[in-house]
Amino acid sequence: MANEKIPYKIYLSEEEMPRDWYNVRADMKNKPAPLLNPGTGEPMGFEDLRPVFCDELIRQELDDTTKNIPIPQEIRDFYKMYRPSPLVRAYCLEEKLQTPAKIYYKFEGNNTSGSHKLNSAIAQAYYAKKQGLKGVTTETGAGQWGTALSMACAYLDLDCKVYMVKVSYEQKPFRREVMRTYGASVTPSPSMETEIGKKILAEHPGTTGSLGCAISEAVEKATGTPGYRYVLGSVLNQVLLHQSVIGLEAKAAMDKYGIVPDVIIGCAGGGSNLGGLISPFMGEKLRGERDYRIIAVEPASCPSFTRGRFAYDFCDTGMVCPLAKMYTLGSGFIPSANHAGGLRYHGMSSTLSQLYHDGYMEATSVEQTRVFEAAEQFARVEGILPAPESSHAIRVAIDEALKCKETGEEKTILFGLTGTGYFDMVAYEKFHNGEMTDYIPTDAELEESFAHLPKVPGQE
Amino acid sequence: MANEKIPYKIYLSEEEMPRDWYNVRADMKNKPAPLLNPGTGEPMGFEDLRPVFCDELIRQELDDTTKNIPIPQEIRDFYKMYRPSPLVRAYCLEEKLQTPAKIYYKFEGNNTSGSHKLNSAIAQAYYAKKQGLKGVTTETGAGQWGTALSMACAYLDLDCKVYMVKVSYEQKPFRREVMRTYGASVTPSPSMETEIGKKILAEHPGTTGSLGCAISEAVEKATGTPGYRYVLGSVLNQVLLHQSVIGLEAKAAMDKYGIVPDVIIGCAGGGSNLGGLISPFMGEKLRGERDYRIIAVEPASCPSFTRGRFAYDFCDTGMVCPLAKMYTLGSGFIPSANHAGGLRYHGMSSTLSQLYHDGYMEATSVEQTRVFEAAEQFARVEGILPAPESSHAIRVAIDEALKCKETGEEKTILFGLTGTGYFDMVAYEKFHNGEMTDYIPTDAELEESFAHLPKVPGQE
Repeated sequence: MANEKIPYKIYLSEEEMPRDWYNVRADMKNKPAPLLNPGTGEPMGFEDLRPVFCDELIRQELDDTTKNIPIPQEIRDFYKMYRPSPLVRAYCLEEKLQTPAKIYYKFEGNNTSGSHKLNSAIAQAYYAKKQGLKGVTTETGAGQWGTALSMACAYLDLDCKVYMVKVSYEQKPFRREVMRTYGASVTPSPSMETEIGKKILAEHPGTTGSLGCAISEAVEKATGTPGYRYVLGSVLNQVLLHQSVIGLEAKAAMDKYGIVPDVIIGCAGGGSNLGGLISPFMGEKLRGERDYRIIAVEPASCPSFTRGRFAYDFCDTGMVCPLAKMYTLGSGFIPSANHAGGLRYHGMSSTLSQLYHDGYMEATSVEQTRVFEAAEQFARVEGILPAPESSHAIRVAIDEALKCKETGEEKTILFGLTGTGYFDMVAYEKFHNGEMTDYIPTDAELEESFAHLPKVPGQE
Repeated sequence: MANEKIPYKIYLSEEEMPRDWYNVRADMKNKPAPLLNPGTGEPMGFEDLRPVFCDELIRQELDDTTKNIPIPQEIRDFYKMYRPSPLVRAYCLEEKLQTPAKIYYKFEGNNTSGSHKLNSAIAQAYYAKKQGLKGVTTETGAGQWGTALSMACAYLDLDCKVYMVKVSYEQKPFRREVMRTYGASVTPSPSMETEIGKKILAEHPGTTGSLGCAISEAVEKATGTPGYRYVLGSVLNQVLLHQSVIGLEAKAAMDKYGIVPDVIIGCAGGGSNLGGLISPFMGEKLRGERDYRIIAVEPASCPSFTRGRFAYDFCDTGMVCPLAKMYTLGSGFIPSANHAGGLRYHGMSSTLSQLYHDGYMEATSVEQTRVFEAAEQFARVEGILPAPESSHAIRVAIDEALKCKETGEEKTILFGLTGTGYFDMVAYEKFHNGEMTDYIPTDAELEESFAHLPKVPGQE
């Protein structure tokens, strides 16, 4: 099965692991637009952001010129607990598909958080600890980010307060218990603990919550509690910076064996995995050194890249966060109730949005029944039960490999397998029972949502 | 954190991975006692076992002289999907405990079945396929073995029929869905599909099932369906043989860096993990080359080694299986209802039973609240959410490390971390909520159970 020279799974040695994160913004001619104060419409600087974020993380957020940022030794030590993650040649999938394509995936699920989220969680917790803070607050939807942050905080002995979207809190009690195992306090959102939570509950008594609402609560809690700051698991520039470790490892492993991907595929919700996976490849592309085809895959039910507007928008429902310029469906957009899994945020990383706007990458959307077909096919031959999120990338990787079968091209495909689906068996069960459905928002629904985009100078 | 020379996690290269399984019975002076026909009391030979098991697996079951048995290339290829498993130095746990002991664990949970069970599942499925069979049947309790077998069968395109203990089927719907993802059919046991199932349901209409009963159903189904055989995930000699890959990898990794364990610790239910982990070390001990302290850890609620009888007993409730000589609590023994997790089989591997009887290993039992304390402590510092089963070994490893703290000894401890606890969050939740209780069977309860041991010539 395995090639004699190239291992079936490539693990870097400790010496080969990245010592710096790579900041793709340094190589971008058109930098991502700055965050704006939602009240004044003015760009937010270091001091403006200090009540919300840790100092060092703000510096990383605002730094669009330093190319390589050293990974502190303590974080590299933590990374050793679960990194390097393997780069795997999908021999069995190739054989099943009878494709001449060579398929590789970077698997980030071999840690208890079950996903790549831990890469940024430990970094953010580390800087909070270093600043002498007592704790951090955050929101979580499906629960992967909350789990990752809980693990990082347990390791560093930092308090962790998670606002979990109420519908997930109730439907995913096991995720909640994993977080509790790591000592986090988990509150269903909206809650009566915050003003914004009370307000939303008063207006919508039966609401099951949303990510945007949980963000508002977490930010309010952090800014109102001495010694606390807010942390976020995706979307932000700093998160993409930390997640660059995925792409750096993948590229180092490929370089070591002379493998060059033709196509790089990642699922995209807020953009943390995709941004991390593609970063060093995108760097080469931006510097004109090498070309790669890069594809973002999003759910057809939450299509921010493929059907959203490139505009300044609110990051949260409560409108307490800065405005970000991004591809967005409008901050009031919530995917239809039959949408399973994550990738449900209304917006997209500003960095990726700018790169997409400038033509450096493609985007495509897929319906979830086709996603779960791919997930099951992958699980059966590759032995890993993939998360629904990751399976968006699997779907498109399979589709690309099947195109190669038609044309006879021996393309090399790299995709990001962000995590495992152990906590998503309700969705798998629906799929097995033929009860899973698809929904694509209508143009009219999106127009209605776009109507609430904020008025910002220079934005129509 | 990590030593400069010894990696934090040791992964063998493909060239360093074992090419043979190691058959510890070849080095035993007192061989494990043969299986007996429950009707005649006569030892069972190849032909007697053919209706139940695959031919090649019977040969392995009966072979107590061949020391090294080559691992077929196809199985080695499959192993590459998730092996080698890492040997990890528990630096963070050591630091937390402030112990001079060096703690290593061999982590078998990095595959979708979530445990070491896959090592034998692929072997058994492979030999079934090679024999031209259509499918296999088995039982599963907590679901790890059923999941592993489903994965192996999906890979080899073999039909897989799982009888799942009814209480688990109902309480662990997610495990069931993982098996369905891999195409297995899963039936709650006892069922109306078999004569023994019907009989048990007639006698005990409200029963929630037991492992012994599910075994009977699976054996009946296999022997009554052309092209099918029965496979078992623990207890049998063949399973210990396949699981020797755990110990062989661990020993190769330790030898590579000159590490010699003083104490080797494994949890023990039927004995598959423990037997596999210790095998090459036990081999050295049996040959008088080196001494190791070896500790089996079992639940205080199901204490076959520490409080059982070394006697021939039924392997199943329906009494359709051969009799095995083993440490047993009696085939009617079922752990109290508050027992969480696996390690609930009434008996123990014949091979391990003989070794224990001959003084080559120790055994100890632990109560589950202390087990979950250890599990949580481990999860918080080592970042892996352990299975309840594995946590029995963690408990004793921690206890041994704390003894070293008292004495100042720098012992090297190796334990088996058999799997992950993602599907055991109900038990974790009980523990978090202070609702978990312990139960130790009384002497009178065990005496009552021993009274039903079969009459076998030479057995009092």
